[in-house]
Amino acid sequence: MEAPLKYLADHQEQWVQDLIEYVRIPSVSAQPQHRPDLLACADWILSRCQQAGLEAELHSTAGAPVIVARTPGAPKSKADRTGRPHFLVYGHYDVQPAEPFDLWKSPPFEPTIENGAIYARGVSDNKGQHWAHLKAVEAYLKTGTPLPCDITFVIEGEEEVGSQNLGPFLEQHKDDFPVDGVVVSDSGIPSLDHPALTYALRGIAALEITLTGPNRDLHSGIYGGSVENPAMALCSMLASLRDSNGHITIPGFYDDLVELTESERAELAKQPFDQQDYRKFMGVQELFGESGYTPIEQKSARPTLEINGLTSGYQGVGSKTIVPSKASAKLTMRLVPNQDPRRITRLVIDHLKSICPKSVTMELETGHCGAPYLVAPTSAAAKATIEAMREATGKDPILLREGGSIPIVTEFQKILGVDTWLLGMALPDDNAHSPNEKFSLDCFEYGLKLGIALWPKLSAAFPQTTPAASA
Amino acid sequence: MEAPLKYLADHQEQWVQDLIEYVRIPSVSAQPQHRPDLLACADWILSRCQQAGLEAELHSTAGAPVIVARTPGAPKSKADRTGRPHFLVYGHYDVQPAEPFDLWKSPPFEPTIENGAIYARGVSDNKGQHWAHLKAVEAYLKTGTPLPCDITFVIEGEEEVGSQNLGPFLEQHKDDFPVDGVVVSDSGIPSLDHPALTYALRGIAALEITLTGPNRDLHSGIYGGSVENPAMALCSMLASLRDSNGHITIPGFYDDLVELTESERAELAKQPFDQQDYRKFMGVQELFGESGYTPIEQKSARPTLEINGLTSGYQGVGSKTIVPSKASAKLTMRLVPNQDPRRITRLVIDHLKSICPKSVTMELETGHCGAPYLVAPTSAAAKATIEAMREATGKDPILLREGGSIPIVTEFQKILGVDTWLLGMALPDDNAHSPNEKFSLDCFEYGLKLGIALWPKLSAAFPQTTPAASA
Repeated sequence: MEAPLKYLADHQEQWVQDLIEYVRIPSVSAQPQHRPDLLACADWILSRCQQAGLEAELHSTAGAPVIVARTPGAPKSKADRTGRPHFLVYGHYDVQPAEPFDLWKSPPFEPTIENGAIYARGVSDNKGQHWAHLKAVEAYLKTGTPLPCDITFVIEGEEEVGSQNLGPFLEQHKDDFPVDGVVVSDSGIPSLDHPALTYALRGIAALEITLTGPNRDLHSGIYGGSVENPAMALCSMLASLRDSNGHITIPGFYDDLVELTESERAELAKQPFDQQDYRKFMGVQELFGESGYTPIEQKSARPTLEINGLTSGYQGVGSKTIVPSKASAKLTMRLVPNQDPRRITRLVIDHLKSICPKSVTMELETGHCGAPYLVAPTSAAAKATIEAMREATGKDPILLREGGSIPIVTEFQKILGVDTWLLGMALPDDNAHSPNEKFSLDCFEYGLKLGIALWPKLSAAFPQTTPAASA
Repeated sequence: MEAPLKYLADHQEQWVQDLIEYVRIPSVSAQPQHRPDLLACADWILSRCQQAGLEAELHSTAGAPVIVARTPGAPKSKADRTGRPHFLVYGHYDVQPAEPFDLWKSPPFEPTIENGAIYARGVSDNKGQHWAHLKAVEAYLKTGTPLPCDITFVIEGEEEVGSQNLGPFLEQHKDDFPVDGVVVSDSGIPSLDHPALTYALRGIAALEITLTGPNRDLHSGIYGGSVENPAMALCSMLASLRDSNGHITIPGFYDDLVELTESERAELAKQPFDQQDYRKFMGVQELFGESGYTPIEQKSARPTLEINGLTSGYQGVGSKTIVPSKASAKLTMRLVPNQDPRRITRLVIDHLKSICPKSVTMELETGHCGAPYLVAPTSAAAKATIEAMREATGKDPILLREGGSIPIVTEFQKILGVDTWLLGMALPDDNAHSPNEKFSLDCFEYGLKLGIALWPKLSAAFPQTTPAASA
């Protein structure tokens, strides 16, 4: 791999400039006024895939276009399989809204380099990360270095708004993606000294609960005391869902949960973590979580039930002396393998119904669901990704579980029937979804080197197959 | 009292028309755009007091003007006392905002008579009620019937916004009001078959609690589980303030409370009350209140702690997967004799501090306070008002406690050192503060007759005093 690495060294500076051009495009998928930018961004990355030597196409969807870009000769159907392993690299060209603008030190779509990092919306999440993969593959192609596998990039434009159209697109074209696995670099690592494979993600289930007491806000003097206050009933119900140890009290909630093994716990403990720094970062005097687990375990490998929002009665300045008619709460549960979001939702609903007093009526609205994800960290493929990280950094990689959810990962499993390896390049202070998002030039270099080291190692984990007879 | 009653019969129809003119003025004190209407309304009632034969003055305040209108010769200082008892009649010419307009069957400031009632904002609360008193006194004055007492009307324009300026006005002019008691008709009766003296009001204390967890909203996937959710902490704290019997658990909360006597309970039980109707009226399947007390007792003679509003995190459509930074609740306590609002507020604050977990920080903001009110229902004066009701209706009056607060009543006690008798004329379905406010013509007639019967009986309860030497 000397040639690709030399090509990388020769072009890295130019690629940083190109990445700056990429993040200059305000491809905010959530905001209709940025629709033209989103489409321009799709065209931009399409042309860059083509320039890199890939066979790239733009596919329209009901939402933003999906870019599909294949290494030359990569199969477009099972019948076309080359006998070499075939991997899908996923990325997204859309970005989060940049608001609030006034908290940015430099404008979010006028990239600047400072302290060895590019500052711009979307540079870490996710343009910089898939850009590194694209350029690493280009290094193979442009130097004529044989790739030991076929690679298909799928770069979508709706990740930040829920990837509504990618699942249906994959479903519709699933025979066009005869792949052996998926590489996603859209997550983080604790530091460049701790390159990491993320082998588990939490799932999610959302639920909104609304209690109605009296059919209108009542004068709290005239009626108060003789009728249930739905805000008080809501507080009582929600408070009862968790005990003082932080355990969730809903019957059956933990039934299907796979407990962390001792070796997993030892692996998670390798992450650099300073409780005092963590408290300071959040501005809290004391942490609170499920007893018996470390904060890292609590936020990545244990389920939660969180209140995301509370609404009831009068919320303006001063006071309004009412018994409110309604009180509601938005809840999300973060789930871990093997909790099924639909089953958990059912358990929560049944439990809420069993504890709801007759003095109020309850409405429940279920929201989005996403299954937790777990890939064996000890498989040959997982180990190969770890060895690629080691080669790219000279450091010992670690295994991570991530507390967030990447719903498309479970879609890949469901639709394409393959595992995803999550090879994050972002740092904890990259401010994804926040003002002053950045991507360190060192992380970019790590991504490029990882991309070059990855394909031979990952391919070696897959047995060569006999090419199918040409159709 | 034949002459006043005949005068009443002769003029009642005209007075209804005059009242319609009065309620046509949109004297909404809370809305700055109605400031000219408020001032016009003050002028209107000033001139009507003068036309009734009273010596009336308009006093400017920092807010809306106060009308002071005296029967001829009524004393303006202690030195001027006539030897006859002297009573203050309180009313307010301002009204609640009429919003939401679309729920009114006829426009709120275009009065209509339907089903024997005038429909208009402010007609029951309070224009119709003090208008009845004014016209009853006019009936004495215009027929030359000697009044056995002096009467001073005080009609303010800021009751619906907290009577901020009336207390200071009385304080400043307290020597100008050498009165033996106050009559307020600004409350209700169960029905015209149950004329009633309200002898107790609940007090109030307001408090806002805000909990802060992390210093900003956090991603519930990345951080959730390892840091306290302030909305959950708030629910736990608030839920713990009440037990399953509806008792408030704050230590010392009930210490100073004077329990209802058996005879009081028997008296309160005379009110017509149908639980099924009450439930239907509120649209609830089941009532909830402090166990061991009837709904009437719960809402008028027992203290409460109510959540008036809840605010936390994301409240828009759909979900936002955050651990919110803040969660807050607006609380009001309704208090009964002899709970002191300041002491209760202190108890609540101390208790909240004792149960607040270290994982969040708490801010508390105290709001307005009002002491509960209790006047002996067995005094000669109270009995006299009851006899006047009996005379006006031919029915047996009852004794009421009212769950709401009328802060000015405690001000009369504090500043003028006298009792207030609450002689309500409104019906439970008069929709005070709600759309389609009304005042029944029968209630108006009751008010007029009560006003005529009242003064001889009430005066008889007060020994004649020797007039002070003229200064």
